[in-house]
Amino acid sequence: MKDIKTYMQQIGQQARDASRLMALANTAVKNTALENIAAAILHNRAQLLAANAKDVAAARNNELDEAQIDRLTLTEKSLRSMAEGLLQIATLPDLIGEITELKYRPSGIQVGKMRVPLGVIGIIYESRPNVTADAAGLCLKSGNAAILRGGSEAIHSNQAIAACVHQGLREAGLPETAVQVIATTDRAAVGELITMPEYVDVIVPRGGKSLIARIASEAKVPVIKHLDGICHVYIDDEADLDKAIRIADNAKTQRYGVCNTMETLLVAQGVAAAVLPKLCQIYLDKGVELRGDEAACKLVKQMNPATEKDWRTEYLAPILSVRVVADLNEAIAHINTYSSQHTDSIVTENHTRAMRFLREVDSSSVMVNASTRFADGFEYGLGAEIGISTDKIHARGPVGLEGLTSQKFIVLGSGQIRT
Amino acid sequence: MKDIKTYMQQIGQQARDASRLMALANTAVKNTALENIAAAILHNRAQLLAANAKDVAAARNNELDEAQIDRLTLTEKSLRSMAEGLLQIATLPDLIGEITELKYRPSGIQVGKMRVPLGVIGIIYESRPNVTADAAGLCLKSGNAAILRGGSEAIHSNQAIAACVHQGLREAGLPETAVQVIATTDRAAVGELITMPEYVDVIVPRGGKSLIARIASEAKVPVIKHLDGICHVYIDDEADLDKAIRIADNAKTQRYGVCNTMETLLVAQGVAAAVLPKLCQIYLDKGVELRGDEAACKLVKQMNPATEKDWRTEYLAPILSVRVVADLNEAIAHINTYSSQHTDSIVTENHTRAMRFLREVDSSSVMVNASTRFADGFEYGLGAEIGISTDKIHARGPVGLEGLTSQKFIVLGSGQIRT
Repeated sequence: MKDIKTYMQQIGQQARDASRLMALANTAVKNTALENIAAAILHNRAQLLAANAKDVAAARNNELDEAQIDRLTLTEKSLRSMAEGLLQIATLPDLIGEITELKYRPSGIQVGKMRVPLGVIGIIYESRPNVTADAAGLCLKSGNAAILRGGSEAIHSNQAIAACVHQGLREAGLPETAVQVIATTDRAAVGELITMPEYVDVIVPRGGKSLIARIASEAKVPVIKHLDGICHVYIDDEADLDKAIRIADNAKTQRYGVCNTMETLLVAQGVAAAVLPKLCQIYLDKGVELRGDEAACKLVKQMNPATEKDWRTEYLAPILSVRVVADLNEAIAHINTYSSQHTDSIVTENHTRAMRFLREVDSSSVMVNASTRFADGFEYGLGAEIGISTDKIHARGPVGLEGLTSQKFIVLGSGQIRT
Repeated sequence: MKDIKTYMQQIGQQARDASRLMALANTAVKNTALENIAAAILHNRAQLLAANAKDVAAARNNELDEAQIDRLTLTEKSLRSMAEGLLQIATLPDLIGEITELKYRPSGIQVGKMRVPLGVIGIIYESRPNVTADAAGLCLKSGNAAILRGGSEAIHSNQAIAACVHQGLREAGLPETAVQVIATTDRAAVGELITMPEYVDVIVPRGGKSLIARIASEAKVPVIKHLDGICHVYIDDEADLDKAIRIADNAKTQRYGVCNTMETLLVAQGVAAAVLPKLCQIYLDKGVELRGDEAACKLVKQMNPATEKDWRTEYLAPILSVRVVADLNEAIAHINTYSSQHTDSIVTENHTRAMRFLREVDSSSVMVNASTRFADGFEYGLGAEIGISTDKIHARGPVGLEGLTSQKFIVLGSGQIRT
C-alpha cells in the first residue's frame, strides 16, 4: 500500500510535468503524434494480438462470460478501427488557444476567453482495450496529459497499446509521460488516483454503474460521470404515427445493450389504440418482452403488467415498459420523475408542445421527432466522445474534445489601472 | 444531529421542487421578483437595521474584532446598494432557454444546445449579510433554487433579508422555497448541505481559505471554489516603464485586502535598475513593506530579504515580494511554480512575448498591460459575480450568471432513425 502510494505520486508528478508541455504543443505536432500512434498500432499488429491472446486465455481460465471475452478480444479489424479512430481525431480542429468573445469594456481593457486544456485527466475503465487508444488520442489532441487505468483482465493488451502510444509521442518529440498506463492491477492504485487533486484535474470513469457510483462517492477530484440511461420516447396525440412507429421501433430495437436505447415508451391516450397494437406487434416479432400499465395491457394482450420498479429500470435488454398517459403534462411529469436525465424524445407535429418538451424535460439530450439512439458524440458532430455525462456541472451529454478543455479569461490593456 | 439531518433533507426536497418551477419561470416574472425584493429591502429598512443591530451587539459581546464588525454592519447606504445590486441583476440578459449552435448533421437531424439552470445551488458564506441578497438575486435570475447558509454572527440580519426575499418571490407568484436561508447556526447543517447530491447540484463557498479547503475536501457535491490569490505582475525589459510603474503601483496599492491584488512583483534584470528604485519609492511612501531577492535588495536599500515562504504567501496587506528575473522564461517559470493560478499580468510592448505570456501562464485571468485589480465580474462585464473560481472544471475566473447554468443538447428531427 505504501509502495502503491509512492508509485502513484510519481505517476501524478510526471503527468503534471508533461501536462505543461502538452498544453503548449502545437497542432501539427499533436497530429503527427496521433498519426505515429496509428502507424505503430498497424505496424505492431502481431505483438498486439499476441499480448491480447494472453489476456483472453487468462479470461477463459478465470471463466469470464462470453460477453466479457467478446469485449476483451482484439482482432485485425478492431486494430484497424483503433488506428482509424486516431487518424479521425487528428482531423478534428484544435480548440486549444482559441480566443473568443474579446470585447472592449468601458475601462478601455479588452476582455475575452482563451480555451486551454484541463491539465491531467485520469480515466478508469473496464475490459475494452480500445479505450486505451481512444482516450489517449482525445487527451493528446486536447493538450492534456492522461493517466489511464484499464481493467486488470486487459493488462497485457493495454500495456502493448501503451507501447505504441509512447512510440508515437516520442517520435513526435512529445513526452512519453503525456500518456501513462498504470502498470499494476492493485485496486489501491484507483484509490490513490481519485484522491490526488494536486496531480489530477478530473476523473472520467467508464464502466458499470456500480464502479462509477463508487468512484464518484470516494473521489476528492471532480468526476465527469456517466450513470444509467433510462431513456423515454413520448408519442403525442398530434404525432405523425408513421414517424412515431419508426422512431419508437428504432429507439428500442436498433441495439439493446447501450445507454441511449429507449427503456420506457409513453403514449398519449388519444392515439394509444391507433398506435400500440401495430407497434407492439413489431416488438413482439423481434422478441421484445413488453411490460405495460393497465391501459396498455388492455390494448395488447401479450403485454405483462409493469411494476413501479420497471419505470426505474435500465434493462439494456429486449424488454420495454409501456405506459399510456393522459397528455404532454403527464408525460413530462413521468419523465422528470423516472428518467435518468440521459436522453428523452417526443414525437409530435405540434410546435408548441415540441418547444415545451425541449424546455421542460431536464435531460442531457432532449429530442423532437428523432430516435434516442442519436445521442452520441459522432452523431452530434463532436468527433469521438470520452463519455456521456449525466452531470450538469462542466459538461452535460456526450463529451468530446471540448469537454476536456476549460476557458481562462484574457485581458488586453494599454496601461489601464483601476480607479 | 438526527433532527438537523431531517431538517436539511426537508430544505433540500423543497429546493429541488422549487428548482423545477424556477427553471420554467419567464424573464419578466424573474425580473419582477428582483424588483419586488429590492423594494421590500428599501421599505423594511428600519426592521433590517434593527435585526442587524442585534447581531452587531452580540458580536461586540463576543469580542469580534473591528474588521469583522465592520463587515457585519448594515447601514442605510449598504441597504440602498443591496437594492441597487438586485435591480442591476434584473437588467442583465436572461440566459435560460437560449439555443445556440444549431447545426444540421449528415443524418438530417439538427443538433444544438439549450442553456438551462444547474438546479439547486448551496452557498456557504461568512459575515457579510449583503451576500444573502446578492446570491439570492443571482440564483433567481439564472433560474436556480438557492440554499443559503450565512455566518452564525449574522443570523438575525440574514433572516430579516430572507423575509424580504420571500415577500418579493411571493408577490411575483414564485415559490418562497426558491431561496431558503438555513435557520439554525448548528455546524452540522453545513455537513449535511455538502453531502446531499440528490438535492444540491453545486456548492459555492465564500469565505476564508480554511473554510473553503475544508468544504472542498468533505463535499460529495461539486464545489465552485475560490482559494487564494497570489497574483503577479511581470515587468518585461521591453515594457513601457511609465505604464509599468502605473500598473505595478495600482495592482498593489489600490486595495490591499482583496484577492486580485498583486503579491509578487517580477522585474526583468535589463530594466530593474531603471524601474525598481523609482517604483519602490512609491511603495515606501505608501507604507508598503518590501521583501526582495538579492538583486532587488541591492537596488533598493530599504528592502528586506525575501524567504522561500514569501513567494507562496497571499499577504492581503501592505507587503510586497520583489524578484529580479533573467527574462520572460524565468518569469513564467516563477509564476507557474508559485502563482495560485488566480490572476497574473505582463507589462511589455513586445507582441510575441505578450502572446507567449497569455498562452503559457496557467491562471484563471492572464493580462497584458493592465492592472490585476481588473479581475472582477463587474469589470469583465458579467454583471455581478457569485465568486471567482480557481478551479478549471465548469467555470474558471469570475463566475457570473453563466457559471450558474449548464447546457443540454437538443435534437430537432423530422422522423430520423439511426441505421
